[in-house]
Amino acid sequence: MAVGLGPLPDFYPVAGLRLGVARAGIRKPGRRDLVLMALDEGARVAGIFTRNRFCAAPVLVTRDHLGQAAPRFLMINTGNANAGNGEQGRVDAEACCSALAELSGVTAQQVLPFSTGVIGEPLPVEKIRNGLPEALDSLSETRWAEAAEGIMTTDTLPKGATRRLEIDGQPVHISGISKGAGMIRPNMATMLGFIATDIAIEPALLQALVSELGEQSFNRITIDGDTSTNDCCMLVATGKSQAPELTADSPHLPAFREALRDIFMTLAHAIVRDGEGATKFITIRVETAANQQEALDVAYTLAHSPLVKTALFASDPNWGRILAAVGRAGVPDLDLTGIEIDLGDVALVRNGGRAADYTEARGQAIMDQSDIGIRIALGRGDVSETVWTCDLSHDYVTINAEYRT
Amino acid sequence: MAVGLGPLPDFYPVAGLRLGVARAGIRKPGRRDLVLMALDEGARVAGIFTRNRFCAAPVLVTRDHLGQAAPRFLMINTGNANAGNGEQGRVDAEACCSALAELSGVTAQQVLPFSTGVIGEPLPVEKIRNGLPEALDSLSETRWAEAAEGIMTTDTLPKGATRRLEIDGQPVHISGISKGAGMIRPNMATMLGFIATDIAIEPALLQALVSELGEQSFNRITIDGDTSTNDCCMLVATGKSQAPELTADSPHLPAFREALRDIFMTLAHAIVRDGEGATKFITIRVETAANQQEALDVAYTLAHSPLVKTALFASDPNWGRILAAVGRAGVPDLDLTGIEIDLGDVALVRNGGRAADYTEARGQAIMDQSDIGIRIALGRGDVSETVWTCDLSHDYVTINAEYRT
Repeated sequence: MAVGLGPLPDFYPVAGLRLGVARAGIRKPGRRDLVLMALDEGARVAGIFTRNRFCAAPVLVTRDHLGQAAPRFLMINTGNANAGNGEQGRVDAEACCSALAELSGVTAQQVLPFSTGVIGEPLPVEKIRNGLPEALDSLSETRWAEAAEGIMTTDTLPKGATRRLEIDGQPVHISGISKGAGMIRPNMATMLGFIATDIAIEPALLQALVSELGEQSFNRITIDGDTSTNDCCMLVATGKSQAPELTADSPHLPAFREALRDIFMTLAHAIVRDGEGATKFITIRVETAANQQEALDVAYTLAHSPLVKTALFASDPNWGRILAAVGRAGVPDLDLTGIEIDLGDVALVRNGGRAADYTEARGQAIMDQSDIGIRIALGRGDVSETVWTCDLSHDYVTINAEYRT
Repeated sequence: MAVGLGPLPDFYPVAGLRLGVARAGIRKPGRRDLVLMALDEGARVAGIFTRNRFCAAPVLVTRDHLGQAAPRFLMINTGNANAGNGEQGRVDAEACCSALAELSGVTAQQVLPFSTGVIGEPLPVEKIRNGLPEALDSLSETRWAEAAEGIMTTDTLPKGATRRLEIDGQPVHISGISKGAGMIRPNMATMLGFIATDIAIEPALLQALVSELGEQSFNRITIDGDTSTNDCCMLVATGKSQAPELTADSPHLPAFREALRDIFMTLAHAIVRDGEGATKFITIRVETAANQQEALDVAYTLAHSPLVKTALFASDPNWGRILAAVGRAGVPDLDLTGIEIDLGDVALVRNGGRAADYTEARGQAIMDQSDIGIRIALGRGDVSETVWTCDLSHDYVTINAEYRT
């Protein structure tokens, strides 16, 4: 029941990056559950990772390997998160990297592992090892759609975005895929994003771009507030385009950043649109805050309020719940009379109470839509922040209350 | 579907306090919705209040009046929270106080108003005014049970506790009632607690007791993390017992405090047991924390995690969700290997992974119970905190997704 999420686009290939997919039977037989991204020599990779203290073994190994060698493979399995497995988890993740290294003639440190799935069960190393030949055999620049499907867990739809632009008269391509439907999933965990471009990007800028754009997109979405142990968002630049290398003072950077931001936003929003049980896509914008912290505190308090989320599910313009959530967000010395709250283009709260021209009918008209904006102006400064979330429905409870069996 | 919540006790009367109840038709006709507590001269009152910045008009008025005069009436209405009404809310709350003052020969400042119900609709002052004579006519020391019912909103059961003890050979009584089933309710808001004793208590000690015990009980429960705009917990000491006045260095204080704590805990836990859609009563205890803040951060992160709460609803010993919630609680430099997590008396997590002797069958046996304890030892210090909550069920969504009509 994804909200306004279309079919996959026709992906532009990204020269220098080939995708391979296998059915390794990691958790269930017959489904694509092992994905390889093979990078030609010279590709650069940067990433951002979960802030959960219990971060999973593959996240630790990927961070290690990134600092040790130039990556040649991203290896993604679903069905098992390899999280909560103590020291054995690292041993198993490294074993998979070594297996792929042996088969392909790279070093284990040139393999970055990613896992998503059930927490606390041993990684089935043997199944992954046995699936690698099939994945290697299938490597192709055109297999983006199959890869998008191969990293899904309980996502209802695969998620992808692709763009083509010209820089200095040369074609440049960006393609990306993502997965996730809760910040953490009971059985099948995690939000993952993989974005690749063929333009060369100077290493420090590559990291700056994934940090900045990841912060504005993947780090501003929430389904249920539960941060996964396995979240990763990786940006690859293969350098195969004829366009000149991008640097921090490149005149082409603004145009490229906009195209890349568009990809990040599309992939991140797709996760919310496919949120567990989601029936509404909600944009919460906090304006005129004194600082970023209070803007985010207010936005996330709303985004995580079960009462606000159930009201959205019910299409109920219950503005008292929004007002109460703002009031409990912990903003010091908040002056209630200066706050403005809008639902879509309808003024809801002014001067500490219901706006004079607000009517239930006007609020209801906004609530009946599937894409809903909530704007809160605090009247304390000039900082704005936006967070995206979905509603809380019966299906969320059903999905998350099902047994792991 | 309250969890382990019995019928009301036979309340001990508290000399010097009479209760009156009326059917004022505030929101729905025919139900008890207006409660008075009339205090004889000499009674002392202390309270703690919501920390929501949007605190409701009656809360502001009660805090004002408490500082201005010796209270003679607590006046509680359900059906309307008188919150989010701007300046008119205060005018209306004061008008109700004045109406009661005129009828009973006290001053308006001697009346403390409390409201619970829908946010953002004007208080029906005329209906309350018209209901006051019936409430005054019914004043009696024995009307505790009717009062417990009269402050309910969508609570499924009335909530009360009562104790008798002897101090210096003299009988002392404590009785109390509470209401609430979500920290804020969509239509019918708020957690309220009213506890009274006939022993005399020195004013500073009275405030210290309600602050300390309220913190340990009402401020440690959560249904959904949504703090109401109207929460109040009031402690009354009528001074009519023959026992000597309690002071901070009274030898009788420890025994009295224990009895009072028992009342506070029973009333607070009753709210969780009757939580919206609750099927489980959960005690989350965080031990060996470095400080109170991190203990509470971990406890509330679990208590508010939709994934932990849906797993509890499903009786699913999904320990990965608990582990992930601890990991994202924001505790700085948390050493994962030192953490212990127990479910009931079953060891769940040791050394960063599943405990060696843990089995699904043992976890399942605990999860199948209706009262469940989760213990988390952080291994960082000697601070402990306990928080109580309930699970997240389909009924929670149903209750909160219903239209206000």
